[in-house]
Amino acid sequence: MPTHVHPVLVGFGDCDPGGIVYYPNFFRWFDASTHAMFAAVGESFERSKRDNGWIVWPLVDAGAAFRAPARPNEAIEIHSTIVRWTPRSFRIEHRAMRGQTVLAEGWEVRCIGEPHPDDPHRLRAVPIPESLRQLFE
Amino acid sequence: MPTHVHPVLVGFGDCDPGGIVYYPNFFRWFDASTHAMFAAVGESFERSKRDNGWIVWPLVDAGAAFRAPARPNEAIEIHSTIVRWTPRSFRIEHRAMRGQTVLAEGWEVRCIGEPHPDDPHRLRAVPIPESLRQLFE
Amino acid sequence: MPTHVHPVLVGFGDCDPGGIVYYPNFFRWFDASTHAMFAAVGESFERSKRDNGWIVWPLVDAGAAFRAPARPNEAIEIHSTIVRWTPRSFRIEHRAMRGQTVLAEGWEVRCIGEPHPDDPHRLRAVPIPESLRQLFE
Amino acid sequence: MPTHVHPVLVGFGDCDPGGIVYYPNFFRWFDASTHAMFAAVGESFERSKRDNGWIVWPLVDAGAAFRAPARPNEAIEIHSTIVRWTPRSFRIEHRAMRGQTVLAEGWEVRCIGEPHPDDPHRLRAVPIPESLRQLFE
Repeated sequence: MPTHVHPVLVGFGDCDPGGIVYYPNFFRWFDASTHAMFAAVGESFERSKRDNGWIVWPLVDAGAAFRAPARPNEAIEIHSTIVRWTPRSFRIEHRAMRGQTVLAEGWEVRCIGEPHPDDPHRLRAVPIPESLRQLFE
Repeated sequence: MPTHVHPVLVGFGDCDPGGIVYYPNFFRWFDASTHAMFAAVGESFERSKRDNGWIVWPLVDAGAAFRAPARPNEAIEIHSTIVRWTPRSFRIEHRAMRGQTVLAEGWEVRCIGEPHPDDPHRLRAVPIPESLRQLFE
Repeated sequence: MPTHVHPVLVGFGDCDPGGIVYYPNFFRWFDASTHAMFAAVGESFERSKRDNGWIVWPLVDAGAAFRAPARPNEAIEIHSTIVRWTPRSFRIEHRAMRGQTVLAEGWEVRCIGEPHPDDPHRLRAVPIPESLRQLFE
Repeated sequence: MPTHVHPVLVGFGDCDPGGIVYYPNFFRWFDASTHAMFAAVGESFERSKRDNGWIVWPLVDAGAAFRAPARPNEAIEIHSTIVRWTPRSFRIEHRAMRGQTVLAEGWEVRCIGEPHPDDPHRLRAVPIPESLRQLFE
């Protein structure tokens, strides 16, 4: 699978009183990279909702190991790859890099959601369409 | 170990175009609950830096499983417990609850950092002082 | 008009490398207070969209004067009042307070939006219904 | 004065349940553009604190008029110019643009802060050094 590279300029406001990136921002950047990766093949939340009634792509789980701190004004990159598809989910792995230095290694498992028939406030995962998977081959 | 309960009112701006909480915000709330839990026993980033020269409490890793969506104006709670201490780290488990409904289950492994002697831009973990651990017994 | 009081516990992650609140967060808290003020009288984005097809309440303009810094773990309050209604907008004034200390004084001018008939990607302001205004008298 | 152009890719997570940018994010982007503009001439929070003991550049006031909504995956730009210097403050004007469309027009008045001699938790503005001003001529 190809790897999507998403550039990030670390902002002053992305950092906390320790002077280093406030860790939830790595998840914001992972999410942004996932959305940019799908946008690059023509997929978006807006299109999926309008055409299919889907909520894309809610999280099943996510996590990260933090290797080195990042600081304001550093140019970093998020390298993102879809590494596995299951019938109703897919796993994306992300690496935050500053040059050759790995700052964080993370993952997201996501699905395609639709309102649950028993309770529209809940979501349930639909089968992943083969056409989506093929966009990344 | 006692469980700290941190209340959160889900804001409109905490939610994304899907109308549900944007997932990195759960990590913001886990972090806020950790800091509130330490503040409740008199510990803070500011005090630790001033008195010990420490950066508290950088992340080693973190993750979450997402069980149910949350929406604007919902009152939720983060239930946080330190479940394990190692010589140089500790693990906090968080449960985001709306009433009896589990919204997310997460964890953070954190340490106490100091500037690395070989490179002040990196951090290294110091031994956890027994006095800190005792604050939570 | 009554004043709505919205409590905020300043988080570590709400502060920047200067150790004080990162200023856009004051606008997040003003927005949260506005939404909580409307929720207190039974109004919400979700209800307005479902029942009226409205997007509530997009910003016309907003601003703030910053008087004193706030820091992690401080309990502050946002005091919010709707001070003026025009045919298609209303003005909310916010004061961020830590005890008797004014931290910031801000305002928001908001409207009720609907998709513009010439271009659904734009919004236009609809006349403010008298029923909405009466909720705050 | 030259205008600094700061590119922003609008993220899914930058948008709210209305599907448009959550307005405090415009202030995050104005702030990011200001910091990038100073970084481009070699100035940063970190350098100013280390070499001068200054906290740069706390806000005196800020505001914006919002002209048109922005949505996920749109590439926009923040155009930023320092338009006025006073003895102890400076004013930056920002325009958020999507192509030729003005999305928002904002401003920030900032100063250079140092701990107040009567109360180190407060800040006071120091005279703007001529050398700083010259960096932008």
